Amino acid sequence: MRIGICGLGTVGSGLFNLLESNRAEIERKVGRDIILSQVGCRRDHPDCDLSSTNVTRDIFEVANNPDVDVLVELIGGTDVAKDLVMQAISNGKHIVTANKALIALHGDEVFSAAEQAGVSVHYEAAVAGGIPIVKSIREGLAGNTIEWVAGIINGTTNFILTEMSREGSNRSFDDVLSEAQALGYAEADPTFDVEGIDAAHKLTILAAIAFGVPLNFSAMYTEGISAISADDIKFADELGYCIKHLGIARQSGDGLELRVHPTLVEKDQMLAQVNGVMNAVMVGSDAAGSTMYYGAGAGAGPTASSVMADIIDIARGGKLPDLGFVSLAPTGILAIEKIRCSYYLRLGVVDQAGVMANVSTILSRHRVSIEALIQKDARRGDAQIVILTDEVLESEMLDAISEIESNEAVTSKVSMIRVSNL
Amino acid sequence: MRIGICGLGTVGSGLFNLLESNRAEIERKVGRDIILSQVGCRRDHPDCDLSSTNVTRDIFEVANNPDVDVLVELIGGTDVAKDLVMQAISNGKHIVTANKALIALHGDEVFSAAEQAGVSVHYEAAVAGGIPIVKSIREGLAGNTIEWVAGIINGTTNFILTEMSREGSNRSFDDVLSEAQALGYAEADPTFDVEGIDAAHKLTILAAIAFGVPLNFSAMYTEGISAISADDIKFADELGYCIKHLGIARQSGDGLELRVHPTLVEKDQMLAQVNGVMNAVMVGSDAAGSTMYYGAGAGAGPTASSVMADIIDIARGGKLPDLGFVSLAPTGILAIEKIRCSYYLRLGVVDQAGVMANVSTILSRHRVSIEALIQKDARRGDAQIVILTDEVLESEMLDAISEIESNEAVTSKVSMIRVSNL
Repeated sequence: MRIGICGLGTVGSGLFNLLESNRAEIERKVGRDIILSQVGCRRDHPDCDLSSTNVTRDIFEVANNPDVDVLVELIGGTDVAKDLVMQAISNGKHIVTANKALIALHGDEVFSAAEQAGVSVHYEAAVAGGIPIVKSIREGLAGNTIEWVAGIINGTTNFILTEMSREGSNRSFDDVLSEAQALGYAEADPTFDVEGIDAAHKLTILAAIAFGVPLNFSAMYTEGISAISADDIKFADELGYCIKHLGIARQSGDGLELRVHPTLVEKDQMLAQVNGVMNAVMVGSDAAGSTMYYGAGAGAGPTASSVMADIIDIARGGKLPDLGFVSLAPTGILAIEKIRCSYYLRLGVVDQAGVMANVSTILSRHRVSIEALIQKDARRGDAQIVILTDEVLESEMLDAISEIESNEAVTSKVSMIRVSNL
Repeated sequence: MRIGICGLGTVGSGLFNLLESNRAEIERKVGRDIILSQVGCRRDHPDCDLSSTNVTRDIFEVANNPDVDVLVELIGGTDVAKDLVMQAISNGKHIVTANKALIALHGDEVFSAAEQAGVSVHYEAAVAGGIPIVKSIREGLAGNTIEWVAGIINGTTNFILTEMSREGSNRSFDDVLSEAQALGYAEADPTFDVEGIDAAHKLTILAAIAFGVPLNFSAMYTEGISAISADDIKFADELGYCIKHLGIARQSGDGLELRVHPTLVEKDQMLAQVNGVMNAVMVGSDAAGSTMYYGAGAGAGPTASSVMADIIDIARGGKLPDLGFVSLAPTGILAIEKIRCSYYLRLGVVDQAGVMANVSTILSRHRVSIEALIQKDARRGDAQIVILTDEVLESEMLDAISEIESNEAVTSKVSMIRVSNL
């Protein structure tokens, strides 16, 4: 089988070298040769010896090369990448891509073109790097009705929250973000990661393959971690929780929840043990129960591992539907106001009698009951109240919060963090 | 596609009901009907409505039924199960089995018959219940050279060790074993689980698919947990470790290590978080790095989930080699005396001057250096010494231990537990 690689950055060079180093072992697994017919890249990569490789500076040459059976798209972005992939498909080539944005935003169009052309599109590397989560859900758990998927699917945010949570750290988001940037774990413009957009792309794909619904990035609720304070980390810890940035897709009775946001997770849960830049996806399903998949979510090796798994799947033959379902069900995505969960609230109040009673009264009027409460010693006349609520409809919670914030004894906006109900 | 189920015990009934409840969703995934043609069982199962099912008391009738494309073997054991599977294969039927002993002991013969007959044998449920670990290694990590596999792959032993490790528990192995038996987590004769034979069956399979070597149960080193004492748990904890019963397959420079034994695992490792009857397999590989797969290792639902995944794989078409390799490499299994790792040692000594010096001298003569040491207050004239060693060849360690035990100041056998080096 003849492959063409487009893009020779971190992942592309990782794949090139993986194919070099593991060629014999891979061919022992697939029983046929894997030939690298061509590499399309803007510039050579210092880690790759391209002396015996057919290299072109025009990636579209790869898409049009009759000696390429499988085009591996590793250039990233959505515009040129989409044109490239569509061109390759129209030339009857299978596609392997690590491009989460491409699949999340244009997957429908790409899959439909591929189906017409009789080729397949593989994207294991698009979600959670080296963890074979797409395969595990589409195939390993295919006998189950999936109930929910909850994942730590962005290494940058997990690194920042982990560092903020180190014992005695008391570090601010901004402080740790700077460190993450210095270490290369966060981009100069970190918006894409810390505001949850990257995680939302991945969750879009996970939801589609878990529930057999269309890719629906635009309906996702997305909230980042930039508002999480050292106080939130500390109070959550006191209550027995850590704060993780989760992507959650959950089939509730009322519809499909699709949400990316900081979440309080009980400290003894497996997801709470996933630290640093590591990723993990937990899947709740009717027969297998809860299973979890853990590993590196990014980097040359892990991403190349998943790209290579896709190449091997194609070489071994067999084809399954792009999202794992022959027909997709209507989405029916629940608006975030309609979800039900427990909430963590933190607010500053004037240190005077009756304030707690006022807050309690407002909450109770909105059917919010209190599960746990911390009131911290006043400093400079102010006190902080932290509340853990029982499960309640989010719209009720938001109404209660807006009423609380308008109370004159309340001196801050209310920090609200959802609590995991999985 | 028409399936026949042989065996309607816990897993069989779980599969029967899973097919009933998820039929529509499964057919949406495979694009064709899954028809249950026949069930072969000694007796009906109270949880299954068999009123519209073709039931036979003769399982071989299923193996000979021309209306069955896939025989699902869930009767367990190795003798009749092997005859049944071989008969079905000779009749051109694909096989799905949850039978770890059958694959570990007779897999070679079964696979070879299947290859000749042009059918395939699937066994996802044979290892780690509901966790799709066979698929993850054979396909998801196929681009990697696997370096090691380490798994908590027996729920009974993990339950017992978890209970013994509860804070302040101080319970003995025998005490917790009785509880496990009362809860149905351990058999009346618990040998198979607590002495590691079940885990060794599973590790045999994991090693074959990870390294592409023949199934080689007889070469496995197997040690159970019955010698682990409350003191061991307590001292390990003091040193920063917990004790887990691991199956480890590891490619070292000298050969393939295949070993099942209690192991000290650092408390902050992911495998240390796997408690109760849960299972997890961690895989170390050259590109993806360390990935872990976690879930329920037994039970009707989880096992049926993996059986169903195999059925779905067959229905979707495509076939890969039984162990994931078109040709198997020679095994080259390392004798346990030739592995290198760190060791935990616990021994009773007479409480008198010079004993520790004697022990240290013996260790140093065998090139064993001490990494950490605990000496506990004497009680009734005896003291306990606990030693954590640096990495050393096991044969050296064993020689040192035998010399230590012959020292007259040493009042007990030496408890030796290997320390994880992964």
